[in-house]
Amino acid sequence: MGDVGNEEKAAVDSKEWYLTAHALEGVPTSDHLKLRTISLSLAVDSIPDRHLVVQNLLISVDPYNRTRLTGVEDGLYFPPFKLNEAITAITVGRVIRSKDSNYKEGDIVFNFFSPVAEHCVVPSELVRKLDPTSGVPLPDFLSSLGLPGFAAWVGIDVVGDPKPGSNVFISAAAGAVGIYAGQLAKLKGCRVIGSTGSDEKVKLIKEEFGYDDAFNYNKETDLDAALSKYFPDGIDVYFDNVGGKMLEAVLNHVNRHAQILVCGMISQYKKIWTEREGVRNLLNIVGKEVRIQGFMSGSYFDRFEDFTKEMHGYIKEGKISSKHKIYHGIESYLECLSSLFTSSNVGKVIIEVNP
Amino acid sequence: MGDVGNEEKAAVDSKEWYLTAHALEGVPTSDHLKLRTISLSLAVDSIPDRHLVVQNLLISVDPYNRTRLTGVEDGLYFPPFKLNEAITAITVGRVIRSKDSNYKEGDIVFNFFSPVAEHCVVPSELVRKLDPTSGVPLPDFLSSLGLPGFAAWVGIDVVGDPKPGSNVFISAAAGAVGIYAGQLAKLKGCRVIGSTGSDEKVKLIKEEFGYDDAFNYNKETDLDAALSKYFPDGIDVYFDNVGGKMLEAVLNHVNRHAQILVCGMISQYKKIWTEREGVRNLLNIVGKEVRIQGFMSGSYFDRFEDFTKEMHGYIKEGKISSKHKIYHGIESYLECLSSLFTSSNVGKVIIEVNP
Repeated sequence: MGDVGNEEKAAVDSKEWYLTAHALEGVPTSDHLKLRTISLSLAVDSIPDRHLVVQNLLISVDPYNRTRLTGVEDGLYFPPFKLNEAITAITVGRVIRSKDSNYKEGDIVFNFFSPVAEHCVVPSELVRKLDPTSGVPLPDFLSSLGLPGFAAWVGIDVVGDPKPGSNVFISAAAGAVGIYAGQLAKLKGCRVIGSTGSDEKVKLIKEEFGYDDAFNYNKETDLDAALSKYFPDGIDVYFDNVGGKMLEAVLNHVNRHAQILVCGMISQYKKIWTEREGVRNLLNIVGKEVRIQGFMSGSYFDRFEDFTKEMHGYIKEGKISSKHKIYHGIESYLECLSSLFTSSNVGKVIIEVNP
Repeated sequence: MGDVGNEEKAAVDSKEWYLTAHALEGVPTSDHLKLRTISLSLAVDSIPDRHLVVQNLLISVDPYNRTRLTGVEDGLYFPPFKLNEAITAITVGRVIRSKDSNYKEGDIVFNFFSPVAEHCVVPSELVRKLDPTSGVPLPDFLSSLGLPGFAAWVGIDVVGDPKPGSNVFISAAAGAVGIYAGQLAKLKGCRVIGSTGSDEKVKLIKEEFGYDDAFNYNKETDLDAALSKYFPDGIDVYFDNVGGKMLEAVLNHVNRHAQILVCGMISQYKKIWTEREGVRNLLNIVGKEVRIQGFMSGSYFDRFEDFTKEMHGYIKEGKISSKHKIYHGIESYLECLSSLFTSSNVGKVIIEVNP
């Protein structure tokens, strides 16, 4: 669906993904998520005050959304999605109707709670204006300068305190957050090792993102042995994106006063909690005086300008590289979400909706 | 064995507990620990420089010693005990021979690494002189003014930061550390709830140690329901002495930015780690931005004088009460250690060796 002629239209058709059945286990399928077409009125009278009609251009595909498909409240990031309602995502879009004098048609906005849809009506307080003339490609607003970059920065620069020379381990190291966490830790002078899901990605994060070394966890039958090999001096900082068995293995290799910065636990998203495998060696926390700190980047938004300034500087100086996996068309959302759980992507997964 | 005549003796018989077989699971028995009698020379020439011969008066019986009987290095507090060697404990003793001019016969000392024995030869750098004329009963040097009180103070006053009015949960609440952690949290104006292993102890910690409420975990078939009942507003601070299933239950009830201060995990001491039940809901750490901080009081010894001053003040003002369970004779050590795992004690378990 193009945007030509939207200015004159009284309504627009919009495809959106909605939840048809809870997905308790495994990778979600078309049994759980379906696409439907709704009609959104563009008549100015029908739009509430301080609301915008936004045509989405880019949709961010995020692993944590998997946790919202179960219908179960279990330590989730956000409440579960409701049956028959559109699921939501972070998007970059273009304003096509405005009932807020601070926004005009054509403005490019970042939208934290958009439906996974081609168009949406959104309260203006939930969006933030972007500057498309800043020289930054739009996809970067969903990656290096967006939430993945921000989450990596909050973990490494705010919540954590990796010292120069310390041994840093990053799981899901080729993922949207991992590539930035690794690069930021390198900028702090750390020795950085990553784990990822394919040999190709191992090669890539060493060559393009400066990791000192990396391993393919799918090939390591014994994670304990792998960590012994890559961390002969133990782990000082673990930036955790996966949880589960990798966290358990790490706990056997942490040094005294280690920091475990928990950004996410992708291995834990596909099951309700009572069905998950537990971590059996938390006793290490005591003897080794470990700090485990979970964090949500949303709690640090007061630092977003500091982050933007620092990250922008690194990008201009060529010290931070990005990678996006771009899918095309709203129809691809289900395939994209599934792809996050099959080790098949590098960097940020984004859907280009309306080129 | 009395101390009469030691001054003239050339040697002294000393009974000591030593490890005869590793205890991988369950409560240790006489299959694993046995008593033997050795002879210690009291001849001055035979004592190394800067060493003391100490007659133990009080022996501290501590749960963490259980972890040292397995022969396995697995996130332990201290390395495993060796077969055929005496096991060690914290003691209070009297110097009966000195090869260090800073110590004289009759001095009362605190000994962090004594064998579990009637007498020992110890490097003077491993002991600390006590003042038996301070008005503090000797057992308190192993409880309120000793490591249990110090561990509670480090957790509540140094590592943690419980705010007035916050909801604090303490497990093993009638244990050596728990009774002080609860009292210190009350002094900070918190609402304090404890879990313990008998109805009698529930009553006692409410009546003698100021807990706002308490429950008997042996009677609660559903820990989740119990925590819902006692923490309708969620848990802000968890002082963890037990780990395992209680920690898992707590993670479903913590509030945003909760602190979990991990002093010990007594439920995890009886098995090697691969045989333990895991904690399945660590994902709560992320969404609720929880901090889990393990600590060992030994890392905070630079604060011991601050602690002593503060605790002494509280004791004099009647704001902190103590409770000791005194056993008699070195022969009772095995029974005492076992008792720590059967919910049968209140407060600090101590053996009086040489009255």
